[in-house]
Amino acid sequence: MKKVLITGVTGFVGSHLAEYTLNEMPQVEIYGTTRIRSRMENIRDIADKIITVNSDLKDYTSTMDILSSIEPDIIFHLAAQSFVPMSWKAPAETLDTNIISTLNILEASRTLPKKPRIHLACSSEEYGMVKESELPITEKNPLRPLSPYGVSKVAQDMLGYQYFMSYKLPVYRTRAFNHTGPRRTDLFVTSNFAKQIVEIEIGRKRNIKVGNLDTIRDFTDVRDIVRAYWLCVEKCEPGEVYNVCSGVGRRIKDVLDGLISLSDICSKIDIEIDKKRMRPSDVPILIGSSKTFTDRTGWKPQIPWEKTLGDLLNYWRERLK
Amino acid sequence: MKKVLITGVTGFVGSHLAEYTLNEMPQVEIYGTTRIRSRMENIRDIADKIITVNSDLKDYTSTMDILSSIEPDIIFHLAAQSFVPMSWKAPAETLDTNIISTLNILEASRTLPKKPRIHLACSSEEYGMVKESELPITEKNPLRPLSPYGVSKVAQDMLGYQYFMSYKLPVYRTRAFNHTGPRRTDLFVTSNFAKQIVEIEIGRKRNIKVGNLDTIRDFTDVRDIVRAYWLCVEKCEPGEVYNVCSGVGRRIKDVLDGLISLSDICSKIDIEIDKKRMRPSDVPILIGSSKTFTDRTGWKPQIPWEKTLGDLLNYWRERLK
Repeated sequence: MKKVLITGVTGFVGSHLAEYTLNEMPQVEIYGTTRIRSRMENIRDIADKIITVNSDLKDYTSTMDILSSIEPDIIFHLAAQSFVPMSWKAPAETLDTNIISTLNILEASRTLPKKPRIHLACSSEEYGMVKESELPITEKNPLRPLSPYGVSKVAQDMLGYQYFMSYKLPVYRTRAFNHTGPRRTDLFVTSNFAKQIVEIEIGRKRNIKVGNLDTIRDFTDVRDIVRAYWLCVEKCEPGEVYNVCSGVGRRIKDVLDGLISLSDICSKIDIEIDKKRMRPSDVPILIGSSKTFTDRTGWKPQIPWEKTLGDLLNYWRERLK
Repeated sequence: MKKVLITGVTGFVGSHLAEYTLNEMPQVEIYGTTRIRSRMENIRDIADKIITVNSDLKDYTSTMDILSSIEPDIIFHLAAQSFVPMSWKAPAETLDTNIISTLNILEASRTLPKKPRIHLACSSEEYGMVKESELPITEKNPLRPLSPYGVSKVAQDMLGYQYFMSYKLPVYRTRAFNHTGPRRTDLFVTSNFAKQIVEIEIGRKRNIKVGNLDTIRDFTDVRDIVRAYWLCVEKCEPGEVYNVCSGVGRRIKDVLDGLISLSDICSKIDIEIDKKRMRPSDVPILIGSSKTFTDRTGWKPQIPWEKTLGDLLNYWRERLK
């Protein structure tokens, strides 16, 4: 049996990765880190099939304890402060959480007798300010992060590179672009829209509040993303970095229209611009190229966009029942 | 009177910047941050001409207190854990000190009624793994840091960019390449060699211990560097980043020979390779291009290399007397 440790297993991506691993990798034992008071809802259905361990990854001793007792073959490091707008409100917390937890995992791993393969979930937010002439964005694009979250992910990304170079630690880095699907919290735009639409469906709300509808983003279903993370540690080069994205640009307005079209609410529903939803700095268009990754692994998104949106609506219909 | 705050004023670069400012900028009042137990030796001769304030820049409250009471027009942020080899031994401390102190200064500055101009002393260590085909390195070169120190400086650099983009805070970034001169501690190669040579001169030592003599670095006198920092905040574009370097590659072996030739010790002195002085990852050659900065400001190094080495030897002759 192979041992896999998923940090942040109760989170959006972590729970999907655990599920995917359960379904597709019968020879794998799944460990996951949680924190005291973690919401366990996302892993409710699989709780008896994985082993969860309480830890604080910002504390080296705690991280080392977990790694040396589990001795994982592979670590998927997903625990993070991942909500971009929060990073302007709590920049020190965001930088500290995202950078120091990564450092502790790398430091602890390099001292283990058997070095685990480590996947770092870096982010398209590292690219930040992208020029239209640079689209679609490859891994070679300059990094010009526009949020403290983006900065924290650059530091995580560079740490992964540096630990590979300094210690030959097998670190695999991906930069995933936007991803969504069931269990995304309503802090994120697609899920927030889906929730508001379901609230209208059940008569709890009359209109939809939105931020900037003109930005264009490259969305992938989270279930395609976690499949990519596995392919990365299995088929990619340690020390290298790979974009993971669909290559398709979707205007946020079209995402909203897509969700509305999958609902029976009136398409003339009131849409209200909410200034508080605007960011201090944002980039109008972000579309990636995952050519390097696809050439290496054969990966391509498989889940149609309409299914992603439909499943997201159903998730909220179930939760708000 | 203009008010200038130099963080890390008791350090190598900080003390030279304070001296340069005293000599060249009569209309400037100089404040400097110190820590409890800072060694005051570097600013001994100018202590009565500058105002020092005890602070902890890793603490936001402490940083905000200092900035709101001084209300500086310009901040030169030089306080840092700046010794690369130490960053492998204490990576969390290095990342925390260098990133969070920068964040606190940026955060505090953006809430001040009068926004100060902020200079961030970023580093050529951010470039890290450089290919020979990329020489001389421009600001567009990919960042591939090879030490936790390099990673911390990437994060500082990106934070400066992000705070300019998010809040229009006037942040000026330079990436200085290696710099040396009097008062460099013996943790750094040039100063370490100079100290050992002076120890031989006075009969305290018989041979010289060295690390890798084959690496090639781009050295500038610290007094030219601090002049560049002033030119940067006076003449450059906020939000942009500028290399500051000589453009001349010097092999460490030649630096050693240069120092020996300025001493009366025997040129056939015993040179001993010390494995402990090797780094976990290092780049063989680092030469920069400061064309962008020179085009903008007219800056060029003025102090001849022989004077830098001679002054460094004299500094140690004085200290070890």
